[in-house]
Amino acid sequence: MSGAAKAGEQWVALCGGVGGAKLALGLSRVLPAERLTIIVNTGDDFRHLGMHVSPDIDTVLYTLAGLSNTELGWGLAGETWRFMEGVERLGGPAWFRLGDQDLATHAIRTAMLTEGRSLSEVTAYLAGRLGVGPTVVPMSDDAIATEVDTDEGTLAFQTYFVGRRAAPVVKAIRFVGASKAEPARAAVEVLAADDLAGIIICPSNPWLSIDPLLAIPGWRALLAERRAPCIAVTPLVGGQAIKGPTAKIMAELGLPLDVAAIVDHYARLIDGFVLDAVDNDRAGALKLPNLVTNTMMRTLEDRTALAEACLGFCRRLRERGPEAAR
Amino acid sequence: MSGAAKAGEQWVALCGGVGGAKLALGLSRVLPAERLTIIVNTGDDFRHLGMHVSPDIDTVLYTLAGLSNTELGWGLAGETWRFMEGVERLGGPAWFRLGDQDLATHAIRTAMLTEGRSLSEVTAYLAGRLGVGPTVVPMSDDAIATEVDTDEGTLAFQTYFVGRRAAPVVKAIRFVGASKAEPARAAVEVLAADDLAGIIICPSNPWLSIDPLLAIPGWRALLAERRAPCIAVTPLVGGQAIKGPTAKIMAELGLPLDVAAIVDHYARLIDGFVLDAVDNDRAGALKLPNLVTNTMMRTLEDRTALAEACLGFCRRLRERGPEAAR
Repeated sequence: MSGAAKAGEQWVALCGGVGGAKLALGLSRVLPAERLTIIVNTGDDFRHLGMHVSPDIDTVLYTLAGLSNTELGWGLAGETWRFMEGVERLGGPAWFRLGDQDLATHAIRTAMLTEGRSLSEVTAYLAGRLGVGPTVVPMSDDAIATEVDTDEGTLAFQTYFVGRRAAPVVKAIRFVGASKAEPARAAVEVLAADDLAGIIICPSNPWLSIDPLLAIPGWRALLAERRAPCIAVTPLVGGQAIKGPTAKIMAELGLPLDVAAIVDHYARLIDGFVLDAVDNDRAGALKLPNLVTNTMMRTLEDRTALAEACLGFCRRLRERGPEAAR
Repeated sequence: MSGAAKAGEQWVALCGGVGGAKLALGLSRVLPAERLTIIVNTGDDFRHLGMHVSPDIDTVLYTLAGLSNTELGWGLAGETWRFMEGVERLGGPAWFRLGDQDLATHAIRTAMLTEGRSLSEVTAYLAGRLGVGPTVVPMSDDAIATEVDTDEGTLAFQTYFVGRRAAPVVKAIRFVGASKAEPARAAVEVLAADDLAGIIICPSNPWLSIDPLLAIPGWRALLAERRAPCIAVTPLVGGQAIKGPTAKIMAELGLPLDVAAIVDHYARLIDGFVLDAVDNDRAGALKLPNLVTNTMMRTLEDRTALAEACLGFCRRLRERGPEAAR
């Protein structure tokens, strides 16, 4: 963690795993490293086989380091699975797969946490070792555990998401520990920066990846008192989620599969909304400034183009003054 | 842990790592599995990268399962090192090497201990999964940490042994936690068995591998009240240790490199001593019953032959009655 105030325009991205990390990568390519802080969901964190696993932080770190496994969609490229073979031989849990090299991340994180280092410190250390330039910060250094009430009962997040492949019907989602958690200090500092230029909510699952952060009272307050425009990028394109169970969960929670439902979800927290060109006909009905552009990030160029579009949108919102921005 | 009393003649082996495990393997080949209990040193146990590592227990389990890496002298055969590559990339500690499949053992052990299982329970579970027939029991379920006072200061055992390759000059050895530790329950049960036939101290390092057990007051009492002969097999052959720093440590502690020093070390705890044929000329000077035989265990046949010799020696000591046996 850098204690020194950063100089120059500061940008903040809030994100979960894969979808969010794509935009975070785009932002990292169009902003100097010292001007970008990526705040990452830790509601998915859990202990597995004695190790502290932070799936979204790792996805962001690996993606920004150019090490992510794009075939699997998680973990490290070129991964091997000898550890898992050993776990299976010993009758251990095989439902959550940990690659041999990925395991080094978890082991070092666990050891550092056991020594009393904060998750922020561990994340900064790992980012440094992986050559990740932007500041990557967990949403909180306190433990927050997402739990899902389903038609199969209450499930820990990873049991629901990986163990049951998000198949159970979601009735409610809880973030255990969030009400007593504090935002990570580095997050507080950057949101209080005089030269904060914008806050971008990445196209992550609002219910699973962004809500854990919003469930922290201190985060609600930080965003309510924001000194710069906050925008969200749609996780829905043409009524479908690009990846993951966003649309499925929305349907199960009785929400229309429409970008307006996403905007409603972020009501009062965002000053602008980015929707996909295929949803151009929905733009007029939105009751806040919006930007219609390509949000499908298939290539690195897509990622940087969407990142540039987000920066430009925030700048325009800021120029329009407090009324337009709030 | 089996709660049921075992039927038939019971044998107990006390051992540390590699040297002891060779004789334990021999014993496992000449005794029915239900008649052999192997009590293993845990003074070398430590936490590394967040994981509970029990080096001697693992050496015994892997050796008895036929999975040990005989080239390295530790770990699993056919091991890979991708995890260690990951640890090095992340700047983690590389001085203690953990193989990808070996890691599964540590991770499962750590997870089970974290859930509140005892080390005895974990060891029984792992033994079962690896198809190890004899009962393998840690000397204690309580934490005991060997520390070495050296000319470089006080070192944790693995720092001394692996990190510094046993190079520092040993001044004293301590077993932190031993005075308050209890013998493992399964060990107490087998030592109290009516049909206990013999206790064999394997050719492990007396100062590093057997003393941790002897530093536990309850173990001293169990051995003092033994209901069957206890013998020790020499770790010294021709004034040299077959493996490891036994001779070096003896010299540093000011002891003569002679089997008599080993016998003195085990004074009042053993009823007989097994020395190597090359030390035949030393047998006469020993003040207790002894057996001269080949103690070098190069082949499996060597191991089973030494095991048979130990069993026969104990039986003869027992037949000679309490005077000879005590």
